[in-house]
Amino acid sequence: MPAHTDQSPTDLDFTPLRALPQRDAIEIVDQTRLPQDLVLVRIVSIADAAAAIRSMQVRGAPLIGTCAAYGLALALRVDASDAALAAAHALLLATRPTAVNLRWALDRCLQVVVPLPASARADAAWREADAIATEDAALNLAIGLHGLHLIERLAQQGRPVQILTHCNAGALATSGLGTATAPIYLAHRAGIAVHVWVSETRPRLQGARLTTWELRANGVPHTLIVDDAGAALMRQRRVDIVLVGADRVAANGDVCNKIGTYAKALAAADNGVPFYAAVPSPTIDWTLADGDGIPIEERDASEVLRIGGGQAIAPTATPVANPAFDVTPARLLSGLITEAGICRPDRLRDLFVA
Amino acid sequence: MPAHTDQSPTDLDFTPLRALPQRDAIEIVDQTRLPQDLVLVRIVSIADAAAAIRSMQVRGAPLIGTCAAYGLALALRVDASDAALAAAHALLLATRPTAVNLRWALDRCLQVVVPLPASARADAAWREADAIATEDAALNLAIGLHGLHLIERLAQQGRPVQILTHCNAGALATSGLGTATAPIYLAHRAGIAVHVWVSETRPRLQGARLTTWELRANGVPHTLIVDDAGAALMRQRRVDIVLVGADRVAANGDVCNKIGTYAKALAAADNGVPFYAAVPSPTIDWTLADGDGIPIEERDASEVLRIGGGQAIAPTATPVANPAFDVTPARLLSGLITEAGICRPDRLRDLFVA
Repeated sequence: MPAHTDQSPTDLDFTPLRALPQRDAIEIVDQTRLPQDLVLVRIVSIADAAAAIRSMQVRGAPLIGTCAAYGLALALRVDASDAALAAAHALLLATRPTAVNLRWALDRCLQVVVPLPASARADAAWREADAIATEDAALNLAIGLHGLHLIERLAQQGRPVQILTHCNAGALATSGLGTATAPIYLAHRAGIAVHVWVSETRPRLQGARLTTWELRANGVPHTLIVDDAGAALMRQRRVDIVLVGADRVAANGDVCNKIGTYAKALAAADNGVPFYAAVPSPTIDWTLADGDGIPIEERDASEVLRIGGGQAIAPTATPVANPAFDVTPARLLSGLITEAGICRPDRLRDLFVA
Repeated sequence: MPAHTDQSPTDLDFTPLRALPQRDAIEIVDQTRLPQDLVLVRIVSIADAAAAIRSMQVRGAPLIGTCAAYGLALALRVDASDAALAAAHALLLATRPTAVNLRWALDRCLQVVVPLPASARADAAWREADAIATEDAALNLAIGLHGLHLIERLAQQGRPVQILTHCNAGALATSGLGTATAPIYLAHRAGIAVHVWVSETRPRLQGARLTTWELRANGVPHTLIVDDAGAALMRQRRVDIVLVGADRVAANGDVCNKIGTYAKALAAADNGVPFYAAVPSPTIDWTLADGDGIPIEERDASEVLRIGGGQAIAPTATPVANPAFDVTPARLLSGLITEAGICRPDRLRDLFVA
C-alpha cells in the first residue's frame, strides 16, 4: 500500500485515489456518481487517467495533479522513451487548463525521470507520484493546523462557528483532509462546535453532491444552500468565516477557483466576514503576476442544460456560457492559508521566497 | 375578452393569465410545466387561485396580485357576506409572504366592494381585477419606455448592448411586457441590438425555464448562465447593465427580489456596471422604512434537493435552507425604473409623494 492511503487522516474508509500495490493501476472513486453510488474505477493506462480527469471522475486541483502523476507512470510502463515521455506529458497537461497543480505534478515527475535510463523511469515516476500524494496529505494537515487557529478564535463567542464553503475543496479533492475542509475537520475533532453552509456549486454541484457527502461521513453538521443564498446569509450575520480552495493562485494573491468564489468574496467583503482561501504551495503559479493571465476553462453547455444528465432545464437550443472558474482579486481576501502559515495575499511571496 | 388580453403588447400568442368572458373562471399558464409543456389551467374557485399561487403555477409579484384579485371575485360569487369577504382576503393574503403586490391588489378590491351590497360585490371585484390587469400592462409599458432610454444610451457604443437579468421579471410575471424585460422588448423592437445574459435562478430555475422561453418566443438573443457566472462576466466587462424586477421595495429604496439579486448588485457595484430594478408602484411598500422589515419566504427543502422533482442532488437527509428572496440595499442600486420615471433609490418618495 502506498504510504498516503495508510496515513489518510480522515475517518472515511476510502481515499478518492488509491495506488494499488502491484504498481500497475490506481483505483479512484468515480466522483460523477456520488452521492448516489460509491463506484470504484480502476485506472490502468494513461488514456484511463486522462479520461478520468477530463470527465471529472477525478477532480479537485491537488487530486488532478496526483492522478496525472500516476498516469505518467502508467504511460512509462508501456514506453519510457523520450518521445513517449514528452507525448504523455503533453496529453495529460491538456486534460484541464485551469488548475496549475496538474502542470506542477507533471513537471516534477518529468524532472525526476528525464535523467534516468528508460528502464528505470516507470518505477521512478511511480515513486514520485506516491511522494506527491503523501506530501499532499501533509500539506492538508499543515493548512488544517494553521486554519484551526482562525476557527478557535471565532469559537470564543460561545456558539457554533458558522463556516461557509463553496464547491468541494475537501478530502475528495486531495489525498488527505482536503484544503478548505482541513481546518473544519480538525476543529470538529477538537470538540469545537462548527456548522458548515454548503454552497451547491452549479453547474456540477460539487457542493451538493460531494461536500455534503464527506461532511456527513465525518459527522460535521452542515446545511445545503443554493449558490446565491450565501450572500444573503452573510448579510444576515449568519456566517462567521468563508473558507474556499483554489485552482491556481497568481503571485500577487489573486485566487482562481470554482465559478462563484468571486461572488462570495464580494459578499464577505460587504459584510465584514473574514474570507480565506486554503492554498497549498503547488497551487501557486509564480509565473503569473496576477490573475488575469489564468486560463478559464469553458465547459460544455450540457452541464448547465441537463442537471445530472436529466431533462433539459431550458429550451434545448438555448445558447449557454459555462465558465468553470473565476478570479477573486487579492484585495477581497482576508488571507491565504498555506502550509507555511497564513498571510495576507500581498505577502505571499515573502512567505515562500527567502 | 377582458381588455388586458387584447392589449398584450408582447408577440406571444397568450398571456400568462386570461380572464374568461363568462366571468366565472380565469385561465392561467402553468408555469411549473414550462418550458417542456405549455399547459393551460382553469381557475374556477378561490381554492384554485390560492393553490396556483402557493404552488407557483402563477408567480411574479404583479401576476400574483392580479390572480389573487380574480380569486377574491370568484369567492364572492359563492358567498359575498362580510365574513366570507374577510375570510377570502385572509386566505389569499397568506398564500405567499414576500411580494407586496398581493396585499395591494387584495386591499384595493376590498375597498371597492366593502361599501357595496352583497349582490353587487362579485361583479365589482371582477371589474377591479380586470382594471388591475389592464393597469399592470400600462405600468409595464411606462417602465419600458423609461428604461429604453438607458439602453439607447448604451447602444451608442456601437455594439450589442449586453444586459444581465435574474429570475423572471418578464411577460410571464405580469399582464404585459414584464417589468425588467419591458425595456428589453422595446429596445429589440426599436431595432437596437441587445443580448441578454439569463441567470438560471436556482432553486426554481425561473431564468432557465421561463426567461429563456419568453425571450426566445420574442426573438431576443440570449445566453443562459449559472447564477454564479454573472459576477465573473461583469468582471470581464461583458455586461453593460443589469436589469431585475422586485417583489417588494421599502420606502428607502431597499429592494427585495429573488435570492441572488444582492450578489449581482455587489458584482455590478464592484465593476461599475449600472444596476437597475424595475419597480411598478404597487411593488412599493411605503409602510416599511427599510428592507429589514420585509418577510423573507423560506420554501421547501425539496426545491433545492430535487431539481424538477428528479433524483436528489445531495444525500437525501441533507439539511437545507431555502430562502426565496434577499434584500439589496439601496446604496448598491444605480436607480429604480418606475412608471413615473427613473430615480435614485433615495429619491423614490419624491417621485410618488407630492
